[in-house]
Amino acid sequence: MTTRVQDLPTPSLVVEADVLAGNVATMAAARPGPALRPHVKAFKSTALARELVAAGHEGFCCATPAEVVGMGAAGLGTDLLLANEVVDRRRLAAMVASTLGSRITVAVDSPETVAAAAAAGVREVLVDVEVGLPRCGCPPDEAADIADAARAAGLAVRGVMGYEGHLMMEADDKSAKVAASMDVLRRAHEAVGGDVVSGGGTGTWDTNHAVTELQAGSYTHMDGDYARLGTPFRPALTVLATVVSTNRAKGWAVADAGLKALATDHGPPTLAGHDVWFCSDEHTTFAPTEGTPAPAVGDRVRLLPGHVDPTVALHDRLHLVQGDEVVDTWPVDLRGWDAPVP
Amino acid sequence: MTTRVQDLPTPSLVVEADVLAGNVATMAAARPGPALRPHVKAFKSTALARELVAAGHEGFCCATPAEVVGMGAAGLGTDLLLANEVVDRRRLAAMVASTLGSRITVAVDSPETVAAAAAAGVREVLVDVEVGLPRCGCPPDEAADIADAARAAGLAVRGVMGYEGHLMMEADDKSAKVAASMDVLRRAHEAVGGDVVSGGGTGTWDTNHAVTELQAGSYTHMDGDYARLGTPFRPALTVLATVVSTNRAKGWAVADAGLKALATDHGPPTLAGHDVWFCSDEHTTFAPTEGTPAPAVGDRVRLLPGHVDPTVALHDRLHLVQGDEVVDTWPVDLRGWDAPVP
Repeated sequence: MTTRVQDLPTPSLVVEADVLAGNVATMAAARPGPALRPHVKAFKSTALARELVAAGHEGFCCATPAEVVGMGAAGLGTDLLLANEVVDRRRLAAMVASTLGSRITVAVDSPETVAAAAAAGVREVLVDVEVGLPRCGCPPDEAADIADAARAAGLAVRGVMGYEGHLMMEADDKSAKVAASMDVLRRAHEAVGGDVVSGGGTGTWDTNHAVTELQAGSYTHMDGDYARLGTPFRPALTVLATVVSTNRAKGWAVADAGLKALATDHGPPTLAGHDVWFCSDEHTTFAPTEGTPAPAVGDRVRLLPGHVDPTVALHDRLHLVQGDEVVDTWPVDLRGWDAPVP
Repeated sequence: MTTRVQDLPTPSLVVEADVLAGNVATMAAARPGPALRPHVKAFKSTALARELVAAGHEGFCCATPAEVVGMGAAGLGTDLLLANEVVDRRRLAAMVASTLGSRITVAVDSPETVAAAAAAGVREVLVDVEVGLPRCGCPPDEAADIADAARAAGLAVRGVMGYEGHLMMEADDKSAKVAASMDVLRRAHEAVGGDVVSGGGTGTWDTNHAVTELQAGSYTHMDGDYARLGTPFRPALTVLATVVSTNRAKGWAVADAGLKALATDHGPPTLAGHDVWFCSDEHTTFAPTEGTPAPAVGDRVRLLPGHVDPTVALHDRLHLVQGDEVVDTWPVDLRGWDAPVP
């Protein structure tokens, strides 16, 4: 029996299947096959990852050991990069033990992360290099030492990674700034060796020419925030909500999706034809702009979140829709930090 | 075997058991028994709700039908108020059908919510009145009509509710402003009738003298944000994280808890002795203030979230700790929007 969008309970994640397919095809044309290493943290769904394999991308980035385990268990372990620093040896060892048929590479940026990887039975690493974002990554001039320490611990060093996250939303001289950031990574790569130079994201998909593989994931669902960049990727994911209360006299309406259903770290969601006032735990308060009819109780609205990654992580499943029809429902099966029970 | 805090995986929610017990006791002394209707949306745990029953509070607020169902299934259905507007008749009917031994009251603020409650077999309602916060609640002068419509539909009207959420963080003339807001509710109550005047929250715990029952929940774990109010409630809940990367030259460190582990709608978390720079999906970047030793990879930190309600909703469980010992682990069993499978 066909499920209609209006039959879905709210709040629910809905993804326009055709928009998603278009985003995937656009990126696959620009960054075919191994030139893209899609980041599963943006969608946390092995079903979506399977679509990316079908589009030619067999290697993936993960942000957590649980994502690695889930991808391996789903038969998507051709080349999984844990693009994050982990010092929890038990979790790393459990990850290695449960993904024996998979190729696993782990990011390291310190003697401690090298030691943890080696102790856990990890076999391959990338040296993570700080290229301007105040987050993980070793100072560039320490990359060679980290690589040496890794090799001394019996780890194979596949190359380097570096994430220029501080430049994702850059408007002025973006190409030059990305090139300068990637020059840092390139010099570290010369010191480290290996075949892989991994980095970038949706915001630098067409300006980062230095990496051998781009770590982008948000382009699939597409953030409301990233959408302001003017890329060809279009927002596919919204949070479906129901208007549960209206105040005609004062002009506002309230939908049943709030902070527990959508992430607001990049600002409140947007809603076409309306001003969004604020989100609270369970609600979003908004008002129609001039020319938009007043919302009525029971109306459905689709809120566009500013940041898809943490929004997806709030939900159990996402619904693929075409027009009014729900054509598929995918579990968000890579949520949380516990590896799935096989 | 005893579990130590340092053995917990990260990120994890940890709650200081003694601080929680103190907060519960302080509120129970000020608002004993039915004078408090704790809001489970703040902690989403039937185990914590049981502690509140032990402290004398048998009636609870819920924000979702799933919370109502979960509380009823846990044997905590003495008097459950769904303090939220719902027009999904299937969900309401399923809630009624699965909580037959419980007393359920539902908030209504429109003809549509009255019709949905009646159609779903709900028997008792409160009329939700807008008292200054731009969210749910009917205009005060429509409260009598909503009550009449409810009675005409066969529903018993227990009274009114109204949430003065816009005054929770108010600093100036708080008592007078709360009193003025509650005067609106009192007049609506005179028009509606019934025994119940429900409202308030942690931020007005000692200034709202108009309600017969206070709807507070955050006081249990206590927000970092609410803590600035100078109440006797102390922060009990933090997000335990591990330092996974440090940049000694540039002075920052990175912990493995970010936007997917803590809510930032009230600002980034705080960390004693450090400046928190920002959160990204999986990380929090911070720097020690003068006099604090530089963090080392592997160190544990406890991040205090600004807003506990949506932070708790990101986790599967919370760990009760005393000193270095984990004394209990409670499932966050009221998460999400699907009722638990009995």
